Amino acid sequence: MPVAFKAEMLQPVGAFKIRGAWHRLTALDAGTREKGVVAFSSGNHAQGVAWAAKRLGIPAVIVMPADAPKVKLDATLALGAEVVKYDRKTESREKIAAHLAHARGATLVPSFDDAWIIEGQGSIGIEAMTQSVEMKLPDPVHVIVPCGGGGLAAGITLALPESEITVVEPEGWDDMRRSLEAGWIEPVGENPPPTACDALQTPLVSPLTFDVLSRRGVTGLAVTEFEIREAQRWAARTLKLVVEPGGAAALAALLARKIEARPGTLVVLSGGNVDPDAYAQVLNSKD
Amino acid sequence: MPVAFKAEMLQPVGAFKIRGAWHRLTALDAGTREKGVVAFSSGNHAQGVAWAAKRLGIPAVIVMPADAPKVKLDATLALGAEVVKYDRKTESREKIAAHLAHARGATLVPSFDDAWIIEGQGSIGIEAMTQSVEMKLPDPVHVIVPCGGGGLAAGITLALPESEITVVEPEGWDDMRRSLEAGWIEPVGENPPPTACDALQTPLVSPLTFDVLSRRGVTGLAVTEFEIREAQRWAARTLKLVVEPGGAAALAALLARKIEARPGTLVVLSGGNVDPDAYAQVLNSKD
Repeated sequence: MPVAFKAEMLQPVGAFKIRGAWHRLTALDAGTREKGVVAFSSGNHAQGVAWAAKRLGIPAVIVMPADAPKVKLDATLALGAEVVKYDRKTESREKIAAHLAHARGATLVPSFDDAWIIEGQGSIGIEAMTQSVEMKLPDPVHVIVPCGGGGLAAGITLALPESEITVVEPEGWDDMRRSLEAGWIEPVGENPPPTACDALQTPLVSPLTFDVLSRRGVTGLAVTEFEIREAQRWAARTLKLVVEPGGAAALAALLARKIEARPGTLVVLSGGNVDPDAYAQVLNSKD
Repeated sequence: MPVAFKAEMLQPVGAFKIRGAWHRLTALDAGTREKGVVAFSSGNHAQGVAWAAKRLGIPAVIVMPADAPKVKLDATLALGAEVVKYDRKTESREKIAAHLAHARGATLVPSFDDAWIIEGQGSIGIEAMTQSVEMKLPDPVHVIVPCGGGGLAAGITLALPESEITVVEPEGWDDMRRSLEAGWIEPVGENPPPTACDALQTPLVSPLTFDVLSRRGVTGLAVTEFEIREAQRWAARTLKLVVEPGGAAALAALLARKIEARPGTLVVLSGGNVDPDAYAQVLNSKD
């Protein structure tokens, strides 16, 4: 069964996040732009905001966990952003970012809990539809999407009102799946298992993203860390693409046969910002 | 300095070779097609011919070195071709293929010494020109191309009559470079050094490819095995693309500053069919 892929690691910052960031920042007026933007992120959103800010001449401060992959920290700095590090276990990035934004009069750019961000990420859906027509492929009637906070999934859900959407999360971090089943927002449990998917470690989804997905009857799936590594290896071998763990979650669900491909199935590979050593280890092993 | 890349690992068989194979096979008449085709190849050409033959319903026999990367052997078999193995050190693939073609009345499909093959590979140049216009990039005025037998380079040279072309080979296998300097064809020396570039291990270029490059004043460069590995690592980290050693030769010359990028520089990444274990080792090391 042929399947289409959206290869978002080929974006300028190696992930889809420039879509929402660009859409949010271009909507700010001149006076607001001058005072700068603040974002908190495990990495890809940071780079997306830094990239958009640099292009628009907007000062950007990014609050990043001290243990974020070095490649993401370096890339954010290289894009000219100021980086403020915090301890993922003892500090609240929300508070640090809110404090910085208040002190500087800067605009906070959330990574998913924002209508502009969601709408920007949704450009994937519009693009996929256009490209399907151009390439004479079936319409994307079923989209499988990795899910952290749900911004990407919500954007695609809104952009493709007639498509079925399935969100995929790492086991133990499948709070969106549980929330959609329950009908209300459930957080990630205490002491969640370790996951290589740094981009999907969101402890709590937002009412905004949850509502979009919930009203459309979106369902979720969980994949194991092994299934994610297998998907990363398959992508390198077969697609010749470098996919980061979180970016490979939707593909993992398909390869593990937790979901069936059909004509018009579109798998979103959401990013490729791997830590080089960790990635080499994944390719180097069979488990 | 922005540089454009032609990412041929994203082709169906993971390399540019389907271009020439498709062009050659579609030009055969019905009676000729029925008797099948024979090709000899270290791997990517084999897959290209097998892929085109399968789509056109033509029986294909591929003569492959017994030590070709397993991923390439398997992929060729998976495409429905019959594979005949030979010993790279003691047997002549040319003789084996000629014998098979004669015995079956099949058509030999050379990997580079053929006008149709060269013309088909040249579609890269035409595509690059079209895409530059579409994407509002500078015209590809300077194309850097990995070189084995020279079919790809010759095709691009013919397709882009106003562009400068530079061919790149692994050190010790830089017979095209030496030939272009000398003004006549010089073979690879005896006991050439080991190279990871299985796709570029061509002991002798052909008058056809040499003449095209020579008449245009094309020049060549050699890169080291280390420079090639560095290019593979850079491509994974920065472009999120898996590039095989031979496919990374042109990029290696650029990164090693053996050639200067300028507006309109196009780097051909010619393939991505890596042996998974060897590739993991490259990513896992710094040398």
